[in-house]
Amino acid sequence: MGFNIVEKILKEHLVVGEIKKGNEIGIRIDQTLTQDSTGTMAYLQFEALDVDKVKTKKSVAYIDHNMLQTGPENADDHKYIQTVAKKHGIYFSKPGNGICHQVHLERFGVPGQTLLGSDSHTPTGGGIGMLAIGAGGLDVAVAMGGGEYYIKYPQIVKVNLIGKLQPWVTAKDIILELLRCLSVKGGVNKVFEYVGEGVKTLSVPERATITNMGAELGATTSIFPSDEVTREFLKAQDREENFVELKADEDAQYDEAVEINLSELEPLIACPHSPDNVVKVSELKGVKVDQVTIGSCTNSSYVDMMKVSNILDGKTVNENVSLVIGPGSKQVLNMIAENGALSKMIAAGARIIESGCGPCIGMGQSPANNAVSLRTINRNFEGRCGTVSAGVYLVSPETAAISALTGYITDPREFIEAIEVEMPKKFLINDNLVVKPAENSEEIEVVRGPNIKPFPLAESLKDIVEGKILIKVEDNITTDHIMPSNAKLLPFRSNIPHLSNYCLAPCNPEFSKRAKKNNGGFILAGENYGQGSSREHAALVPLYLGVKAVFAKSFARIHMANLVNNGIIPLVFEDCNDYNDIDEFDEIVINDAISSVENGKIVIENKTKGKIYSMKLEVSQRQKNMIIKGGLINSIKNK
Amino acid sequence: MGFNIVEKILKEHLVVGEIKKGNEIGIRIDQTLTQDSTGTMAYLQFEALDVDKVKTKKSVAYIDHNMLQTGPENADDHKYIQTVAKKHGIYFSKPGNGICHQVHLERFGVPGQTLLGSDSHTPTGGGIGMLAIGAGGLDVAVAMGGGEYYIKYPQIVKVNLIGKLQPWVTAKDIILELLRCLSVKGGVNKVFEYVGEGVKTLSVPERATITNMGAELGATTSIFPSDEVTREFLKAQDREENFVELKADEDAQYDEAVEINLSELEPLIACPHSPDNVVKVSELKGVKVDQVTIGSCTNSSYVDMMKVSNILDGKTVNENVSLVIGPGSKQVLNMIAENGALSKMIAAGARIIESGCGPCIGMGQSPANNAVSLRTINRNFEGRCGTVSAGVYLVSPETAAISALTGYITDPREFIEAIEVEMPKKFLINDNLVVKPAENSEEIEVVRGPNIKPFPLAESLKDIVEGKILIKVEDNITTDHIMPSNAKLLPFRSNIPHLSNYCLAPCNPEFSKRAKKNNGGFILAGENYGQGSSREHAALVPLYLGVKAVFAKSFARIHMANLVNNGIIPLVFEDCNDYNDIDEFDEIVINDAISSVENGKIVIENKTKGKIYSMKLEVSQRQKNMIIKGGLINSIKNK
Repeated sequence: MGFNIVEKILKEHLVVGEIKKGNEIGIRIDQTLTQDSTGTMAYLQFEALDVDKVKTKKSVAYIDHNMLQTGPENADDHKYIQTVAKKHGIYFSKPGNGICHQVHLERFGVPGQTLLGSDSHTPTGGGIGMLAIGAGGLDVAVAMGGGEYYIKYPQIVKVNLIGKLQPWVTAKDIILELLRCLSVKGGVNKVFEYVGEGVKTLSVPERATITNMGAELGATTSIFPSDEVTREFLKAQDREENFVELKADEDAQYDEAVEINLSELEPLIACPHSPDNVVKVSELKGVKVDQVTIGSCTNSSYVDMMKVSNILDGKTVNENVSLVIGPGSKQVLNMIAENGALSKMIAAGARIIESGCGPCIGMGQSPANNAVSLRTINRNFEGRCGTVSAGVYLVSPETAAISALTGYITDPREFIEAIEVEMPKKFLINDNLVVKPAENSEEIEVVRGPNIKPFPLAESLKDIVEGKILIKVEDNITTDHIMPSNAKLLPFRSNIPHLSNYCLAPCNPEFSKRAKKNNGGFILAGENYGQGSSREHAALVPLYLGVKAVFAKSFARIHMANLVNNGIIPLVFEDCNDYNDIDEFDEIVINDAISSVENGKIVIENKTKGKIYSMKLEVSQRQKNMIIKGGLINSIKNK
Repeated sequence: MGFNIVEKILKEHLVVGEIKKGNEIGIRIDQTLTQDSTGTMAYLQFEALDVDKVKTKKSVAYIDHNMLQTGPENADDHKYIQTVAKKHGIYFSKPGNGICHQVHLERFGVPGQTLLGSDSHTPTGGGIGMLAIGAGGLDVAVAMGGGEYYIKYPQIVKVNLIGKLQPWVTAKDIILELLRCLSVKGGVNKVFEYVGEGVKTLSVPERATITNMGAELGATTSIFPSDEVTREFLKAQDREENFVELKADEDAQYDEAVEINLSELEPLIACPHSPDNVVKVSELKGVKVDQVTIGSCTNSSYVDMMKVSNILDGKTVNENVSLVIGPGSKQVLNMIAENGALSKMIAAGARIIESGCGPCIGMGQSPANNAVSLRTINRNFEGRCGTVSAGVYLVSPETAAISALTGYITDPREFIEAIEVEMPKKFLINDNLVVKPAENSEEIEVVRGPNIKPFPLAESLKDIVEGKILIKVEDNITTDHIMPSNAKLLPFRSNIPHLSNYCLAPCNPEFSKRAKKNNGGFILAGENYGQGSSREHAALVPLYLGVKAVFAKSFARIHMANLVNNGIIPLVFEDCNDYNDIDEFDEIVINDAISSVENGKIVIENKTKGKIYSMKLEVSQRQKNMIIKGGLINSIKNK
């Protein structure tokens, strides 16, 4: 029996466990990447591992999130990351060099290798045939230290692309179509592998647009074959030596299959407030547009920018539209500055912003209240743009650029003749914003500004765990409730003490004070606690506040893993009715905690109410050990 | 007896008063400009005047301050300004079109005309022979409505430029030399008129760099003649028809004279934290640099950028330096994008930010803690860059660019051979980001987002004014104490209710609550109350909070005028010892307020202490009338 690409890469990288659907397996990580909003913490955690040099083939630290710098915090973090990277064998991509996923594709990605990144859009690397997975900063730190990365062995979905895109229909429309069909939950615990005749019609950046937004399907990752198109791309980036061919065997098996006929697709648009709320652009014809932003890790490649420039050439942005363009990398920006394309954008009235995440994460360029904002980004969650009342629509760069000219949502096919842009035979290669690691790491002093605070480390589990219920919350509490993230708090991602003041504040602004006053305690929650983003700070901050366990009706998967990684016990009620019996400030005690964790059955005693409740711990043996040892870092250091 | 240029322009524009040193005179304003941080309020005030169309020759509304847009407030304000401008005959310069002073010079400034701008660096226009003055938003609103602008007839200082600048010595060094000699207080109530053989060696943008930083001398304004250099500049901007010659008569008289020998100047640098803390660059040789920013209204012209590009060409920014470049206008950006200069900057590793005020006002690009930041801006006050612990140094673009390459403060003369850049014979003309006023204003609906709140309007003076002392503050309270301004509060300049929560907070965080609880009252202050920036919000916000009068030992001039404009009575103790006698919460009453204001002698009664104090009102008759009528707007509307 033959293998598909995902199976081949997993087999080759297997370190722990057995290849079997649903099994937890540990895989070797070849490359890592971090961005600055998660990276500061990841490097603090890496330092705690006491590893001199990273053990990966290549690790790169990017600055792309916190680039506005409205206070000293961002620059402090940049300096810390630059020096810690230099000391420990990590390449450092300076602010201005571009968005991690775009730059990684251009300069570092290698087909067939594994990439772990502390950013949820790390699967962009699947466009160049990497098995690229987004994870928490601590997992990335461990991988840099040579540790394996654990995943549940995924379902592998074959996506068969047939036909060829029509003029004005783009890679963005392919992934929007998949989102329309499968929804934002359609990819959970799955990897999407693209096959079929349509694959060879797509350039590497187009493939990357698709794998990038595979994250919006909830997928573990997505991957394309590595073929002649891949070789040409690598050659044009002056690194043909990184090419390896990668294709599924003729008789490869898949768990599921989907087919998309590219020839039948039309320009699509995701409406507020979900990436799967997809309709045809033509259905929204004539909706007035206030803002258009072009860029982000999804659509900021050279060809994207050239198409936009050609559309804008000689024209003027509509009087009532603010058009914002952020090329994806210094390479892209430099090439379009060199060949005149940038000049055409400026002439048309575009606002050119730095290469970075910017508008996509609400880090600048928030639209007016109730505005309609057309964006080429990957997520249009309510409020993510910084303006809760705005409606963000996701489209291709072509639809975006043309709508910026008309001032209305416009199907590009109605407007002008198709524009052809060739992939360059040779990209402009200039890595002078990438700082190489030091030869002699002892000479490097790591600079820690006042925004860089030590992060909390759990202690090994005690046999008696006691405290008060600090807060009782409802169902579906998200990581945005637990640790709010916005333009004001993002600069403090390396400052857990500061962030702790905002922990669970949307539920109860007093939570932080209460936790500090009581020297920590427990959180009581309903169903699906910790859903949403993977941010690890939603575990680190409660840890800092002394939270020892969370009692819930159920947990979201990634947050549960983050709690375990940080030594907080995630306990699920055997009988959900017990939730009703417990109140805030009840005194709780867990006796025989260590042996209870080992066997996964835990009884908690409510001293206030004089009752006991049965709880279960639904984690792997590896994770149980981790809880007992006080989290992942302690667990590794004790090895 | 002949006249100098200032006298000629003042004579020609005199509307009220008599030309005599120290007299208050009212002059006709030909042009106005606003920027967005002061402009939103200026247009709200303009609307309150009920004037359909501006009565100036040209009024332009620029967006250049609040361009980061980390929430909906900025875009809301932009939309308001765009629509209110269109309705009332004002040209609107969209975000991305550039910094007000640079764009105004390029596209709108006319020699010999008067320009009133709601920005303290409005004197930049003096580079093209305008009498250009910075003022509060309300004064600009009144000027747009056709009202005269009042100044004290100034002392006129002749600045005689002899000789010629040596290679690597720049216009920036001329004004730094003046600051070194005269200090930041050296220009109060003065206008600087530049004459001498050195004048003709300076281009219009070079002259504008000098008049721009005349503001740092505390001068009312500065002005250059309008000569063949001016004509060539206007011709290259395709508006030779705006040229008029402007020169002092042979036998013109001046109140003071200064001479600077350009040939003897060296590259200079202003050290933290004052623009007059000037030494030679060579004296600081070898100081390590963390950040370099090039741009702002002082040094962001085409020639500035071309010189920087030539210096950076083929080189790489030092590994430990973040180099940030913000070209001054779309014209400049487009020209350097077109001719390849921008590409060279990008290749060298510069971060290119939008044309706007940005780093100069701490609106982004704040350096790390304790960083050394070399900047081509005009002010290096402590904390203005957003990082209180950073040291900001002011230099020419040439010194900045070369130091960015070396990583140390570097005298450019040591480094590379001189670079010659010619002024263009023809600038790239494309005004497509300037929106013209509507032909038919009735068709335009002014859009007011939720950040646009009505501003407070004083009431006409009552004969009995009473209330409590809400706060007692010390000497030297600045407008930064009264109404703090930072990246977090700047987006709320059109939202007085929101700002009011922060009024006098640095002195007492309870002030705002206290004022609201007591329905307003009085402020008790020491010497020099209201020093610092001219921001009108330091009067508007107390007005909103019901402050009826301020009792002080003395006032800063501009703030006192702002209080009067907003109907708050600024009273000075006849006997400063009375200050000690009064406490917070004392009940104060002013009887016969109207007749007392008229004769300038006011007795206030302290009901709590059972005492009376003699106060004086040191304002002109015009201002007394204004107080009685309830501020400038009511005073005009009652005319």
